[in-house]
Amino acid sequence: MNAMTTITAEHDIADQISQADFRNAMAKMGAAVNIITTDGPGGKAGFAASAVCSVTDTPPTLLICLNRSSSVFEIFEKNKTLCVNTLGGDHEMLSALFGGKTPVDERFAAACWESGLTGAPRLTDSVVSFDCVVNDSVDVGTHKVLFCRVVAIHESGSQEALIYYQREYHRISRASA
Amino acid sequence: MNAMTTITAEHDIADQISQADFRNAMAKMGAAVNIITTDGPGGKAGFAASAVCSVTDTPPTLLICLNRSSSVFEIFEKNKTLCVNTLGGDHEMLSALFGGKTPVDERFAAACWESGLTGAPRLTDSVVSFDCVVNDSVDVGTHKVLFCRVVAIHESGSQEALIYYQREYHRISRASA
Repeated sequence: MNAMTTITAEHDIADQISQADFRNAMAKMGAAVNIITTDGPGGKAGFAASAVCSVTDTPPTLLICLNRSSSVFEIFEKNKTLCVNTLGGDHEMLSALFGGKTPVDERFAAACWESGLTGAPRLTDSVVSFDCVVNDSVDVGTHKVLFCRVVAIHESGSQEALIYYQREYHRISRASA
Repeated sequence: MNAMTTITAEHDIADQISQADFRNAMAKMGAAVNIITTDGPGGKAGFAASAVCSVTDTPPTLLICLNRSSSVFEIFEKNKTLCVNTLGGDHEMLSALFGGKTPVDERFAAACWESGLTGAPRLTDSVVSFDCVVNDSVDVGTHKVLFCRVVAIHESGSQEALIYYQREYHRISRASA
């Protein structure tokens, strides 16, 4: 197969993949649910996100994809610090709250938070929380990918995790626990 | 709280987060398991990866984090096309095979593949497969983040997904199925 010919053909077909097709397909790639928080000169904010993943352990770095048109975008841009709080099995309501249009104070009032090392709110009973400094970023289409250096880790001991798959929440527990 | 003072303090503490601490913490962020494949001028290759996420639907784009010291790195660099195959509940053995040191022919011999639009092998019974052209990339520490434009999507109809959490495989099914 001639790869160059194939790629040309793909570019023609690429236009046929709609946003809806892409979203429906991505819904089949299960992911942990996280609440990303920040607090600092830009203000306090938090949103639910599944587009988070590990990049490298040298140095410990994760990434987050954030829509540049999001209402919280400028706050994160200004603070340059954040906390990734990975949700547990009983955090379904909290995820919905931070994924909707609820005012910021009401979002945070629905759970217990501590102030992390960066000042970003850390969810007390998250499965794990990563306090981060945003080291670098890159724009891709409508989104900005934030590369975050992890500066503190906190684990609550909670073992049941919340997974979002096919637009439904699922709980998974460590089998050997 | 003075954010700048806080950040300075963090940088001191950042050095205390070991690779092991980071890996153990990231193991608590559950993720889908994917086999990333390619075939073209650079050769044929495939590896298992959970560091994959959606970036934007405008245009449909996902990202993959790949270790630059990986044995397959140069092949992906040269081909610039790939297929992300999201694994189903019964693909645990396949994940182990593509995550280990098994020779490439033995890896692929363990499952059924079709040639996708880019020429990258598409796993016939994946939950979903994304045929992609690598549009852009950025180096972060030891890894390269590949930004991949999705040019074709294939769904097998399989509804049970494989999730990796706390270094164990978990199966999840659509509750409403």
